[in-house]
Amino acid sequence: MQKTIETVSLPSGVACPTLIVGSVAFDDIVTPAMTGRRILGGSASYASIAASFFAPVRLVAVVGNDFEKEFIDRLENRGICLEGVQHDASGPTFFWAGEYTEDFNVRRTVDIKLNVFENFRPVLPESYQSVPYVLLGNIGPDLQMHVLNQMRGDAFVVADTIDLWIKTRHGELLEVVRKIDCYAINDSEATLMTGESNTIKAGWRLLELGPKMAIIKKGEHGAYLFHSEGLFALPAYPVTDLHDPTGAGDSFVGALLGYLAAVNDTSYAALKQAMLYATATASLTVEAFSCDGLEKAGPEAIVDRYNTLLGMISI
Amino acid sequence: MQKTIETVSLPSGVACPTLIVGSVAFDDIVTPAMTGRRILGGSASYASIAASFFAPVRLVAVVGNDFEKEFIDRLENRGICLEGVQHDASGPTFFWAGEYTEDFNVRRTVDIKLNVFENFRPVLPESYQSVPYVLLGNIGPDLQMHVLNQMRGDAFVVADTIDLWIKTRHGELLEVVRKIDCYAINDSEATLMTGESNTIKAGWRLLELGPKMAIIKKGEHGAYLFHSEGLFALPAYPVTDLHDPTGAGDSFVGALLGYLAAVNDTSYAALKQAMLYATATASLTVEAFSCDGLEKAGPEAIVDRYNTLLGMISI
Repeated sequence: MQKTIETVSLPSGVACPTLIVGSVAFDDIVTPAMTGRRILGGSASYASIAASFFAPVRLVAVVGNDFEKEFIDRLENRGICLEGVQHDASGPTFFWAGEYTEDFNVRRTVDIKLNVFENFRPVLPESYQSVPYVLLGNIGPDLQMHVLNQMRGDAFVVADTIDLWIKTRHGELLEVVRKIDCYAINDSEATLMTGESNTIKAGWRLLELGPKMAIIKKGEHGAYLFHSEGLFALPAYPVTDLHDPTGAGDSFVGALLGYLAAVNDTSYAALKQAMLYATATASLTVEAFSCDGLEKAGPEAIVDRYNTLLGMISI
Repeated sequence: MQKTIETVSLPSGVACPTLIVGSVAFDDIVTPAMTGRRILGGSASYASIAASFFAPVRLVAVVGNDFEKEFIDRLENRGICLEGVQHDASGPTFFWAGEYTEDFNVRRTVDIKLNVFENFRPVLPESYQSVPYVLLGNIGPDLQMHVLNQMRGDAFVVADTIDLWIKTRHGELLEVVRKIDCYAINDSEATLMTGESNTIKAGWRLLELGPKMAIIKKGEHGAYLFHSEGLFALPAYPVTDLHDPTGAGDSFVGALLGYLAAVNDTSYAALKQAMLYATATASLTVEAFSCDGLEKAGPEAIVDRYNTLLGMISI
């Protein structure tokens, strides 16, 4: 029996499918307010759940022998296709333990165990290879390139990364960046990537590396879209109940890709709308551990926040 | 002979006069790029020059025996009325020496000499007392209150402050804040004032202290307007050639007040427009020492940047 997945209602008709590749993890997280143990984390978990509110998601990731049915159910309940998820029985799922201190301004990695992720090679099932909207979530650039090499046809590709890969795999990362459409990273990563401390200069510099557009995410300070047609700046949603910032950026890019697939449009105007929906979606993520807040609030809350955000920037 | 002062052309007819009270100073400034000696500084200098691009300015401040004619000429060249400026021959003008380090992120006071400012008591000439648009720039809250007590009629009053007064004169500051219309401070000051580290919460909390609206300035991250009709968020102008951030906030509030006086409108819609013009104006200030960049660029540049900013937030 086909289950109906609640999504944001958009006047676009049938949404295109999306392909999301990244990590699935269990996280232990300590914030100034609370402690979460063994919560569902990883770039692909956040991104795929966020995207699922807009368009069908086909997920590529690896999980270990401790990835219980409740987590599989949770992803399937959002209609996420798990055909591309590898189950590696040789060990446990990728584990990350982190701590936020000083009023959420400092994030420290307490523990990290790659586990089955160490030997992960993403393999795209046949049905995934011509999906038109692709997100390369944060994984090593060699794995991101391996995904691109399996793609057929001309997909719109968004990629994210983290500072680790910029520092240790810069050359491989540049190869990936040259082949994608939209590079979406945070402000400190943009500085690290370009050597430019001014965020505006860094953004334009990113375009010189190859992508058609770049998004710089600034957390509570919003996000920029650098595009051949102009610069678009958006404030963050006014979150007053920050619970756990983990996954905000992953939810943002997931929702961004989901929206683009839902309207099947990658124009400048569509990208701006996608930024609004991405910001609205990410704001629900940070109000709880994992995607709990987002899943609970549902598509109506995303639309409410989209409208609030629209009001905040209307003159 | 009446000289014509170039201002931003607005479809409002005749601008109302503004009253600006604050400090006039000489600054020595060291930035990662350059060193400026004895440049015209102080909250009232920045604010009055910025406001003069929109509406007539009547200035109240004190200068010392070293305030040469070139500086008087400079203010008069912007049409600023100096009837309320006290010339104290007993000593030199207020002096501040500061240094920006770590890519402009840290500002350190190297030297401060109050000089004639120490005994300053602002006195409003008769012709200033019923001016309808007033800016209480950064000076002690006792002096700000002394100005309010000399006002007749129902002016629209904007006030700024700095962390020093929040820490040392909190009670007096609260008295001032209770009597004003718009409290415009930066994000760290808002946190200090309210005890609330979340900027959104801090902004709404400021309204509980009395003012009808509050503006929180976030430098390169833009500004918020907290208003009974809603929350408005604006990004900063995309400055790529930061030269000296000193006076950005003062220019912002000066231009804000000037715009409101120019259109003689303090509605929510007018305040939003004022935020755009204030942001455009402040961006010209930070591209040079003192108000050099702003004065050189002139009203056309302010309008150009206003339009750029409008484009950046249009969806």
